[in-house]
Amino acid sequence: MVSWKGFRVGRSKTAGSRPRQTPRPLPVSRVELGDFTPDLDVYLGLVAYLQLALFESLGRASSITPSTRAKALTGVVATSTLERHKALLAEIERQGGDAADVMQPHSALIDDFQRRTGGGDWHESMLATYVAAGLLNDVFIRLAAGLSADYRERVVAALELGAETDERELVAELSLAIGADPKLASRLALWGRRLVGDTLLVARAAISASHQSADDERLEPVFTELIAAHTRRMDALGLTA
Amino acid sequence: MVSWKGFRVGRSKTAGSRPRQTPRPLPVSRVELGDFTPDLDVYLGLVAYLQLALFESLGRASSITPSTRAKALTGVVATSTLERHKALLAEIERQGGDAADVMQPHSALIDDFQRRTGGGDWHESMLATYVAAGLLNDVFIRLAAGLSADYRERVVAALELGAETDERELVAELSLAIGADPKLASRLALWGRRLVGDTLLVARAAISASHQSADDERLEPVFTELIAAHTRRMDALGLTA
Repeated sequence: MVSWKGFRVGRSKTAGSRPRQTPRPLPVSRVELGDFTPDLDVYLGLVAYLQLALFESLGRASSITPSTRAKALTGVVATSTLERHKALLAEIERQGGDAADVMQPHSALIDDFQRRTGGGDWHESMLATYVAAGLLNDVFIRLAAGLSADYRERVVAALELGAETDERELVAELSLAIGADPKLASRLALWGRRLVGDTLLVARAAISASHQSADDERLEPVFTELIAAHTRRMDALGLTA
Repeated sequence: MVSWKGFRVGRSKTAGSRPRQTPRPLPVSRVELGDFTPDLDVYLGLVAYLQLALFESLGRASSITPSTRAKALTGVVATSTLERHKALLAEIERQGGDAADVMQPHSALIDDFQRRTGGGDWHESMLATYVAAGLLNDVFIRLAAGLSADYRERVVAALELGAETDERELVAELSLAIGADPKLASRLALWGRRLVGDTLLVARAAISASHQSADDERLEPVFTELIAAHTRRMDALGLTA
């Protein structure tokens, strides 16, 4: 069980598997983060570099897939990840920035995140992608509310590229494997709890990169919602968060 | 020095560095391979799986980059690689195939190729991408001549996605590094000779997958041209092939 500033993540009674037929849809975001949006170049550099890190993890996952079917899915998810990256690079270019210069300041944070969440096998890697891409996409889409109007829509569209389809396919593939193997189910439930802590650290860093004090009590409902969404994501796999 | 059915690859006198200001443009293909085109599903499965393997190597290269600038370039090249993969998957779908089923028969050949050509560091990985993507793209574009008219153009367009720009950027980045470090230059010259042998094996397998006998003497001028194009590619880096 992971706690974040007093918010308990998940229910933690059993680390078992509860397969579902159809995952419940995630509710629409309610709490905005527009007051905590960092400067445009910080925002774009961080989220563009994050996509590169996810791509690297997916490349590694692809080389240790259990089957060609799993490898094909990994390629599909990696493709959307790099499409998002490319669309974000276009925004960096639009504002006159250099991709490497704008991404560089975030390498230590994200490289560390990537090392901690790479996973020991294909299933762990894909759960990490599902959890991290899901949670951090949520955060960056909320933070986009504070971007200037001429960037906001395009950035949100970039972040949404392939996200819904990929999430659906990842859930289908992981659920199948989890349903067939109770040992994998409990291992992934544990792994999911570790992942959410590391992922929330990145979320926290993104929010703290603004000029606002990140200890603001307005953040509490945001983290409550992020954790609730994470619990629903794990639930969709039949895993206790 | 690598030989291929009697064709000596490169000049092999010196393994040194000869930086150039502007690489000569590669000449337009002359010898067609349309008589050796395998069945559509074999062709598409092989080339789609190859792009996945290149993506995996790039993911690994990205995680060992010497700089954020190198990582950004790796991401750009990986993006085009997966854009090609995606466009090829669309063709597999168009002909009613399942991506995993169509790619599966080629996994042993390509996984082995990838293991042998992964490279020990970022520069070796990127040289491998440059050499393999360059040479095999050449081969598959020539083989596309034998595809049915309603597939040919789209497949060639898929293979050309980003290829020219990426090649230019790879040459610029590798040339800089080679010009600054004579030891790297001679190491990469050796590595390039090993790569061309492994890459020609995949080219050979692609051509042999047709129903034609691949020992046909018509293949000799093709291999001569492929090797000449490889030599020009190494030359563009200031390396002796």
